[in-house]
Amino acid sequence: MKFDYPDDSLALHTDAYELSMMQTYWKQGMGNRRAVFESFFRKMPFNNGYAVFVGLDHIIRYIKNLHFTASDIDYLKSTGQFDDDFLEYLRDFRFTGSLRSFEEGDFVFNHEPILQVDAPMIEAQLVETALLNILNYQIMVATKASRIRSVVGDQSVMEFGTRRAQELDASIWGTRAAYIGGFNATSNVRAGKLFGIPISGTHAHALVQAYMNDYDAFKAYAQTHHDCVFLVDTFDTLKSGVPNAIKVAKEFGDKINFQGVRIDSGDMAYLSKRVRTMLDEAGFPDAKIFASNGLDEKTIQNLKMQGAKIDVWGIGTKLITAYDQPTLGAVYKLVAFENEYGEMVDTIKISNNVSKMSTPGKKQVWRINDRLDGKSEGDYITLADEDPRKLSQINMFNPRFPLQQKDVSDFTARPMLKEIWRDGEFVYTEPTLEEIRDHRIASLAALWDEYKRDLNPEVYPVDLSQRCYDNKMKLIHQVNEYVKGLEN
Amino acid sequence: MKFDYPDDSLALHTDAYELSMMQTYWKQGMGNRRAVFESFFRKMPFNNGYAVFVGLDHIIRYIKNLHFTASDIDYLKSTGQFDDDFLEYLRDFRFTGSLRSFEEGDFVFNHEPILQVDAPMIEAQLVETALLNILNYQIMVATKASRIRSVVGDQSVMEFGTRRAQELDASIWGTRAAYIGGFNATSNVRAGKLFGIPISGTHAHALVQAYMNDYDAFKAYAQTHHDCVFLVDTFDTLKSGVPNAIKVAKEFGDKINFQGVRIDSGDMAYLSKRVRTMLDEAGFPDAKIFASNGLDEKTIQNLKMQGAKIDVWGIGTKLITAYDQPTLGAVYKLVAFENEYGEMVDTIKISNNVSKMSTPGKKQVWRINDRLDGKSEGDYITLADEDPRKLSQINMFNPRFPLQQKDVSDFTARPMLKEIWRDGEFVYTEPTLEEIRDHRIASLAALWDEYKRDLNPEVYPVDLSQRCYDNKMKLIHQVNEYVKGLEN
Repeated sequence: MKFDYPDDSLALHTDAYELSMMQTYWKQGMGNRRAVFESFFRKMPFNNGYAVFVGLDHIIRYIKNLHFTASDIDYLKSTGQFDDDFLEYLRDFRFTGSLRSFEEGDFVFNHEPILQVDAPMIEAQLVETALLNILNYQIMVATKASRIRSVVGDQSVMEFGTRRAQELDASIWGTRAAYIGGFNATSNVRAGKLFGIPISGTHAHALVQAYMNDYDAFKAYAQTHHDCVFLVDTFDTLKSGVPNAIKVAKEFGDKINFQGVRIDSGDMAYLSKRVRTMLDEAGFPDAKIFASNGLDEKTIQNLKMQGAKIDVWGIGTKLITAYDQPTLGAVYKLVAFENEYGEMVDTIKISNNVSKMSTPGKKQVWRINDRLDGKSEGDYITLADEDPRKLSQINMFNPRFPLQQKDVSDFTARPMLKEIWRDGEFVYTEPTLEEIRDHRIASLAALWDEYKRDLNPEVYPVDLSQRCYDNKMKLIHQVNEYVKGLEN
Repeated sequence: MKFDYPDDSLALHTDAYELSMMQTYWKQGMGNRRAVFESFFRKMPFNNGYAVFVGLDHIIRYIKNLHFTASDIDYLKSTGQFDDDFLEYLRDFRFTGSLRSFEEGDFVFNHEPILQVDAPMIEAQLVETALLNILNYQIMVATKASRIRSVVGDQSVMEFGTRRAQELDASIWGTRAAYIGGFNATSNVRAGKLFGIPISGTHAHALVQAYMNDYDAFKAYAQTHHDCVFLVDTFDTLKSGVPNAIKVAKEFGDKINFQGVRIDSGDMAYLSKRVRTMLDEAGFPDAKIFASNGLDEKTIQNLKMQGAKIDVWGIGTKLITAYDQPTLGAVYKLVAFENEYGEMVDTIKISNNVSKMSTPGKKQVWRINDRLDGKSEGDYITLADEDPRKLSQINMFNPRFPLQQKDVSDFTARPMLKEIWRDGEFVYTEPTLEEIRDHRIASLAALWDEYKRDLNPEVYPVDLSQRCYDNKMKLIHQVNEYVKGLEN
């Protein structure tokens, strides 16, 4: 507790090497040269056919508030690794660059830029870590949520994962991502307050234990709440929980809104069918059965196959931790940099893994749709000064599988990277959370079913324009020549 | 951005059902009755032989600051689910109870209470969610870090995972947990500031790309920093990166501290051996080789088996997300509750899964060690009013495997749940982070090697006292009788 700073900020929420590099750029007079960084990821999350872009809201808050406080500077000084004049410069640091991004609720795909920072090198470098920290998590949860939504159909699905989330921020931003991905509500009250997400939750086993039996507990709850969902598995679901829920529901009649019962353990397929029959026979055909217990899209599909009578799904661990793949692995790579003559020069990173190679040049992503049916043809990545809307036909091909190509005509092309900041000015009109939710649904409608299935989806085309491809080849060639030159 | 509250607090960082139950307790006049809740987990993380307890520091900060702000109350009112008199009560809410916990750096095991809240029911209920949110993550990272430490031996190992963490808090608290678990430093500068953890990091690929070649980039870095680790895989590790690192190191000589080179891609075993030879032949036998790229305890062991010449390990994703098991799954169960006559009554939760059954009664965990060699005999769980230090011999047996038992004499017994709050008063002297680190190492020394191996460790005994066991059996019987009574 001795390290409590009333002026703590997120400026230091970055990797040490960002600050080390910033000092180099600054002292070498390169800090104000324009740099273009782009974020992309290499592998589709959960092998899904699409990923849901979220995180922009948190990124906007982060950049809007980005500045070094007195205690930040004092700390940096205490490390002995930074010079005083550099630290003085940091005191007035603000983000003065441009940022373009997909919008929340958009679909994104691997190997395409999903966010682009075009700013003085020193600023663009600082924000890398926090931007990735935010995107790498939130996109996973929204995508997982969208997968789960796709298997529950029109049923309600609730985010119940706070206690299993990886610390506090993950629960808050994770449940917002889940809501965008198609969830109906959250158990996290603070997320309800901060984002306007509907909250959901009635009682836990502790209430039943406190009253020592189901009947007294349910009755006490009914006396103090209008909407009632009784948790029925504290002692024995079929012998005690459900009969007592029914008893209380009958006794209270119209005085409460008996919404149903929740099962949190045991064989969900078997129990839910038995519980359904008991509720129906007692005259509560509209009472719903809520289920929670390690559920995800796979167990839900399995339960549905078995004819489980579950109406509302409560999802915890598997969603909020993106259990089967806890990070997206998005990176942030320099694609262009201003040289000493004020000209922008494209840059590449080669590395010893081919998959880690970057695509040089400042780019735009165009979503190509069929003009007649509105269905997606794929994404077309161009250099920033190309505009496929001027073309009557484009040749789409995947640089990693060059044989796979097609000519597309009669198409619409929409630029997907939208301006958020322009030269330090915030120029974006933020949609509401409900608009973002609707946007995900509208995006889904344009996608062929083959990309949407949760197992072995077709691969959505993400293709480079000829100029973009030629530019990449040129830079690979340049690097090869450079390396060859070193050997001689 | 429309939901920005200057007085936002963590009081609402809880599940909606906690507040619903609180309203019931409060309106039924039960809110101030004493309740004892205990946290435990059911499965050892990563199938490790021990888990490292951390999280208490964050829990302390959370409880110390716990209060409802005006905007919290306004939000709850806006939901229409809470009565005005209950909301009025919340305005003055403070934690007035007692809390006992393992200390950070202690080892903990499944099926034993690791944290205990003994407080007015309404208070004990509110804190459940945040406590689990904190513990379920931090224990995983500290345990993973301890596993990684066990395979790197005396080498340095760095936490580099911020960009892959699940949102901001996870990076901060995760790297603190990693440091306690045996890591040497973090890349996260804010964690360095907040906790006093050493920070580490030099430069990324972007620096080399900005200068268009390794030599100019390394030279620029050397001109602006004393300690230098050059990242050598931007274009070609063996042909460009390493030769240029050596060239710059020779040119700068004593003007810099050439610590070594970092490899971030490619075949680590092959490259590190080649790089080692190059550095040695160039006259830099003390220059270290840093490696990073999806590493964890398994890949490190594998690289060591292959004779990889790596000196410093940078660990990201696999640690900070606890990749192979992203949550501990600890729960928080009511074990005793004050009845209407002011007597404490033990409670149990049965459920339809045997593994989800709780052990009733307020308890203490005793660490039993051999008096002669100090080595651990196991943990002995008693009811809170038992004191095995008064006994000359104890019979230790595992209630799940009753055949597995032993008589232990000539032992020492230490109570592991320490008082943190007593009746609302904070009574704990917090150790420094360095003391916590040392404590983990001391704890390791008392553990037999068989519990410490990373694959298939022996199961550490966690046993119930006879009274504790009999009490559990009695309550199971009571519930069975209750359920049977309902059938008749």
